[in-house]
Amino acid sequence: MADGVPEEARVGSDATPTTVEGDLPDGLLAAFDAYERALAADDQPALAAAFEPTATVMRADAGGLLVGHDAITAFRGRRGSGPLRRVVECHVRVLDGDAALIVSVNAPAGGGRGVVTQLWRRAPFAEAPLRPWRIASAQVQAPPPAIDRRVWRVVGEPLVSGARGDGSTGTAPPAGPGSADDATRPLSGETVAVKDLFAVAGHAIGAGVPAYLAGATPETRHAAAVQRLVDAGADLRGIARTDEFAYSIAGRNSAYGTPPNPAVPGAISGGSTSGPATAVALGQASIALGTDTGGSLRVPASYQGLWGIRTTHGAVDRTGLLPLAPTFDTVGWLTRDVDTLRRTAATSLPRAEQRGVEPSFVVDPTLLAPVSPEVRAAFTSAVDEAVASGAVARPEEVALGDVAHLFELFRVRQAFEAWRSDGAWITAHPGELAPDVAARFAFGSTISPQQAEEARVALEHERHRLESTLAGRVLLLPSASSAAPSLSATAAEVDAVRSATLGLTCVAGVLGAPAVSAPVLHVPVEATRQGQGDASRAPDGASRRRAPVGLCFVGPRGSDLALLGVAAAWPS
Amino acid sequence: MADGVPEEARVGSDATPTTVEGDLPDGLLAAFDAYERALAADDQPALAAAFEPTATVMRADAGGLLVGHDAITAFRGRRGSGPLRRVVECHVRVLDGDAALIVSVNAPAGGGRGVVTQLWRRAPFAEAPLRPWRIASAQVQAPPPAIDRRVWRVVGEPLVSGARGDGSTGTAPPAGPGSADDATRPLSGETVAVKDLFAVAGHAIGAGVPAYLAGATPETRHAAAVQRLVDAGADLRGIARTDEFAYSIAGRNSAYGTPPNPAVPGAISGGSTSGPATAVALGQASIALGTDTGGSLRVPASYQGLWGIRTTHGAVDRTGLLPLAPTFDTVGWLTRDVDTLRRTAATSLPRAEQRGVEPSFVVDPTLLAPVSPEVRAAFTSAVDEAVASGAVARPEEVALGDVAHLFELFRVRQAFEAWRSDGAWITAHPGELAPDVAARFAFGSTISPQQAEEARVALEHERHRLESTLAGRVLLLPSASSAAPSLSATAAEVDAVRSATLGLTCVAGVLGAPAVSAPVLHVPVEATRQGQGDASRAPDGASRRRAPVGLCFVGPRGSDLALLGVAAAWPS
Repeated sequence: MADGVPEEARVGSDATPTTVEGDLPDGLLAAFDAYERALAADDQPALAAAFEPTATVMRADAGGLLVGHDAITAFRGRRGSGPLRRVVECHVRVLDGDAALIVSVNAPAGGGRGVVTQLWRRAPFAEAPLRPWRIASAQVQAPPPAIDRRVWRVVGEPLVSGARGDGSTGTAPPAGPGSADDATRPLSGETVAVKDLFAVAGHAIGAGVPAYLAGATPETRHAAAVQRLVDAGADLRGIARTDEFAYSIAGRNSAYGTPPNPAVPGAISGGSTSGPATAVALGQASIALGTDTGGSLRVPASYQGLWGIRTTHGAVDRTGLLPLAPTFDTVGWLTRDVDTLRRTAATSLPRAEQRGVEPSFVVDPTLLAPVSPEVRAAFTSAVDEAVASGAVARPEEVALGDVAHLFELFRVRQAFEAWRSDGAWITAHPGELAPDVAARFAFGSTISPQQAEEARVALEHERHRLESTLAGRVLLLPSASSAAPSLSATAAEVDAVRSATLGLTCVAGVLGAPAVSAPVLHVPVEATRQGQGDASRAPDGASRRRAPVGLCFVGPRGSDLALLGVAAAWPS
Repeated sequence: MADGVPEEARVGSDATPTTVEGDLPDGLLAAFDAYERALAADDQPALAAAFEPTATVMRADAGGLLVGHDAITAFRGRRGSGPLRRVVECHVRVLDGDAALIVSVNAPAGGGRGVVTQLWRRAPFAEAPLRPWRIASAQVQAPPPAIDRRVWRVVGEPLVSGARGDGSTGTAPPAGPGSADDATRPLSGETVAVKDLFAVAGHAIGAGVPAYLAGATPETRHAAAVQRLVDAGADLRGIARTDEFAYSIAGRNSAYGTPPNPAVPGAISGGSTSGPATAVALGQASIALGTDTGGSLRVPASYQGLWGIRTTHGAVDRTGLLPLAPTFDTVGWLTRDVDTLRRTAATSLPRAEQRGVEPSFVVDPTLLAPVSPEVRAAFTSAVDEAVASGAVARPEEVALGDVAHLFELFRVRQAFEAWRSDGAWITAHPGELAPDVAARFAFGSTISPQQAEEARVALEHERHRLESTLAGRVLLLPSASSAAPSLSATAAEVDAVRSATLGLTCVAGVLGAPAVSAPVLHVPVEATRQGQGDASRAPDGASRRRAPVGLCFVGPRGSDLALLGVAAAWPS
């Protein structure tokens, strides 16, 4: 009674449902009740057995729709123990003797109310009287959290107000579209998710590491890149998660969890601009402000179907940004549409320092070697179709040389600088990082200044060589080596994907060049998920569930705005 | 394509579903598609017609489960135009020729993904071939917002860390239960929703009024009541909504909307501690820090099934609290369970200033006159049952006199002080308040100092008279005159409920006495909702859907902690 739920409303195996339509078939309520008991006991085999053992069984929640028994079981394994909840209403709609819908309201131990819709069917594949009731489809509404800690550290409505037409920066609601603000405040009405590496006045920088945040003091000024957006009229929605010290492209943070990927339920978000990317994909913000050292904007853009740009190295002021590897660190943004991205980029890139670029494309087939077959096929088709449409000329094939060597130079120099950025703190705070991130920093600690200098010189040489090969043209390549891997992927699987993807993304990193990721490629979702099997196939056998992959445009340094125009004009 | 959803995945009237089980019956997909088109066109008659016209039809979303066609139509009327969304997956499970489940994934225009489960049935009540497909049950998952602006202004994970065992106030995660902190930090692990009337360092006080917030500057120190909770180890989850300048008990804020009431879907939250109450009811915080001038803690506690206490006037330091009517303003808390409330109260009420109280109860039957019949019945039954159980003696009946007169004195003095608190700002900012709140302040502006002084003297007299009648005993009464009114209630209906409720709540206000609201009464939900009709009746005719109402314990001044013990011991 403590939570105001009348005791008699409990549903147990002998409970009376709240409302019933039709004649209650034998065993239905007992099966419903057994499922609730299995949840309470975290009896995973019983929970798995309660769902139809098919490739078409479904389960949906705020994270999206899972199709297929294996996908649902994998989710349950990741979640661990289920919610403690008490059923307080139970509405039964009997459809026939072998099917019924049950809509139940539950009171979770932690407060609020949940709602669950379940389609129960008697197993058609077993013999009577052994035909048990099983769930064919379930949709679960749990009480929403105040804040999704996987995505955000702090959120406001807004957290910081954008500048208004009168020059004030208050906290009043933004002027509507079409107001006099539009010209002087081109981002009026937009909301920004700021990666937790940038200074936001009044808040400390957390860098994705709780112990680091605990020792940090509030910033007194916005980072330059933050101030530009606020000056342009954008509200700050909040400070969003990053991979630990931004030294990952997966989005898996050992302290805060992995932000969800609404484009591919059950898949990782991509990182290190993980929280801002998910916030934009979910519609919780319209602009993600992030950084890209080795792919930290392009990878989440690719995995989540967003537009993104990593800008020319040095083109956006990095004052107030916590560095990872300054030789490669760049600022950039993610959005759901290219128009918003172009408006955003225009606020922060001095036009006088920008150059043009022609839509003259090149490809390097050897770059596609480590890429998944599905991504390779999607990339090749997209280029072929664009050429066939007459919109673009056939890209010339170029040879960028030994990309593995390039990546190795990049990796060494990045790790050396990362250790220089964060090594002192890490040494003083052992055990605070995820093993993979810690291992990368540890590698950085082994690199001598001489090795680092050799890498720098070699990288300089490589950059000139690449620039000479590209000759001001736009390099096309996939933004990532695969669609978003499953949340259930092993560390080894994630690491393999990371290496393959960095082989692509390091090219722009070495060049210091701008790179736009456009969400124009799609691969069958089977290629990214274990255990989906036939579930994602339409009756005709053609899959209709797709996962996004980015098409990446790398242009000459300083061509950021023009490159966005070229990418926006790509036929799709 | 801009959002990465493949064009071919659109579902139109001629679309291929993503997966199908069974033979597609005639007209099903057309009905599904027509419903999506009606949503896009905000064709409310068509949307209403798409749901079965019964008292058992269901619709659930994050706000809870609505049962009955009228309740669903009322919801739709309140919501206004529906979401712009495009179906990107559509999974059909045919159950027989007359029933099918459709689970669809949609891409809302604002980003993210939604999921909808619908049970479609062919109307059993019409003649073939006129039997249209209609929705018998729907569960809707929309992409979650970053922050629910009806409930919160700013949220953090945490926003402010509670003090730790070592005396630090950092931002590290709290120590777990059973840690060494427990003794010195009795609220370690708890999270607080702070009403937006209290100072939180680094944030301005908004008072539920956007223009007021826009002109406010960040506070440099926590309010005393906030500091107590932080010192006791509680984290601040965020700053939550209040009715405008706290001058209402409904919870309806004209700028930010009405926080949801998870205990009664479709009903108002109660206020003015509206956001903190909902936050606790939803499990988004474990402690609501609020104020109660004329019922602003007891009413939301009653409407949402929470435990709550308004403390003895003056017992909790009001430094850093924006005043409404200082003669009556008190601090207090809401929780989901009484143990948390007792622990919280103990941190903030100096034990040396507290007195005891005996479980000796009185009632005044005339107080029940303006109360709804259902609440009167629930209150009377609860008292009778407690007496019958032998746990308490039959409460003595007392006569508190002319409560309407009492309320009028209270109303005059409160309005006078409220105008003194906020009149200058309101005069300088015309048109910024809801009409009902503005009218109350306008009334305050008409009261002369002499009238206010006469009211003060009369109230002093009434207080002595009431204290003499109560003679140190505990007055029992309902916390509110009804269960939570519908969100669709008219202003006149809400005002009538307000007057009836203030007739109850003003007694403690005039006394300056502590009042505990315990969630032990329940009334049939029909009494609080229009259009529910038979939907909430079980097959046996007995309703099983209940709405909470608080049982209120008013004790002598200074008996707060003892009174909580008395309320906790109430048999239920």
